[in-house]
Amino acid sequence: MELLERIIKEEGRVYPGNVLKVDSFLNHQIDVSLMDSIGNELYRKFKDKGVTKVLTIEASGIAVACSVARLLEIPVLFAKKSQSLNIGNEVFTSTVSSYTRGKEFQITVSKRYLNPSDKVLLVDDFLAMGNAMKGLIYICKQANSSIAGIGICIEKGFQPGGEELRGMGYEVISLAIIDSMSEDGTISFRH
Amino acid sequence: MELLERIIKEEGRVYPGNVLKVDSFLNHQIDVSLMDSIGNELYRKFKDKGVTKVLTIEASGIAVACSVARLLEIPVLFAKKSQSLNIGNEVFTSTVSSYTRGKEFQITVSKRYLNPSDKVLLVDDFLAMGNAMKGLIYICKQANSSIAGIGICIEKGFQPGGEELRGMGYEVISLAIIDSMSEDGTISFRH
Repeated sequence: MELLERIIKEEGRVYPGNVLKVDSFLNHQIDVSLMDSIGNELYRKFKDKGVTKVLTIEASGIAVACSVARLLEIPVLFAKKSQSLNIGNEVFTSTVSSYTRGKEFQITVSKRYLNPSDKVLLVDDFLAMGNAMKGLIYICKQANSSIAGIGICIEKGFQPGGEELRGMGYEVISLAIIDSMSEDGTISFRH
Repeated sequence: MELLERIIKEEGRVYPGNVLKVDSFLNHQIDVSLMDSIGNELYRKFKDKGVTKVLTIEASGIAVACSVARLLEIPVLFAKKSQSLNIGNEVFTSTVSSYTRGKEFQITVSKRYLNPSDKVLLVDDFLAMGNAMKGLIYICKQANSSIAGIGICIEKGFQPGGEELRGMGYEVISLAIIDSMSEDGTISFRH
């Protein structure tokens, strides 16, 4: 997606440890017009797949999920990272290790909102090691929901998550795939 | 907002401790069509206030914030609840006590994205004790940003947050204000 690549080049900042900061438009401040374009692009890719629900993880995935779900006219469901008094006990859970936070956390989804008749589109802002996606896949398996595909804004193509998920047979659409990046600001995309 | 009140009556579940579960459409599963209506309503109320940025707290506030920001054609900024490797050190912080989680947590906003020329619309899914909003107000004060107003989906009118914030001089628009609710399912709204 040319627009997304351009904005990553203009505004992304590369830090040690393969950290790409895109907090000016994607995961802290959000460019809502870009979000509409991202939603359109994911809609175009997945509109004929019979998707019934868009599943993501709080927090950065929510804006992306809403942008495509409003075009598909289906609900968003977001996995929670901490147990609130409000979520109840009837939940599917999965453990995810976070690359950027350097620790493991639990994600939960209420059993009420995911079931065997669901065909789920998984979305997130980033795909690197693929741990978050594997957590969501495990939750869908517990619910006996099928998976329509995976939609990602930015894939770090030099990390193994994308290849692994494609190897497992999932259709992974990443709107920008970074092949390499360095701290002098050079970012190369796969085409 | 009649549509929101109707959905709360139909789908909201009241639990002990003044807990209202609206996780089927607002803060776990998200009804994106309702979200568009909420965005429209908040846009109508705040479109002439010169708002430059919509500020909320992850995670439930993000969908609401995006729905109004895309109509105002301005960015969303969401305060983060935990420190990620990706956010950096130059942040405004504030401490918020959570009613539903029963503990205090820190929120952070990068100094890069909030400054004295900003006129901020604060939004959230719920207003009860007002602690989250007071945390966001404190962050705006640190940035010397002005506050255009506060937009809320559901206010618990029997808890003091709304009255306190209005007493402080802020324009608080709550799309549904609950005057009382009980575990037998009765929910009364203020009109």
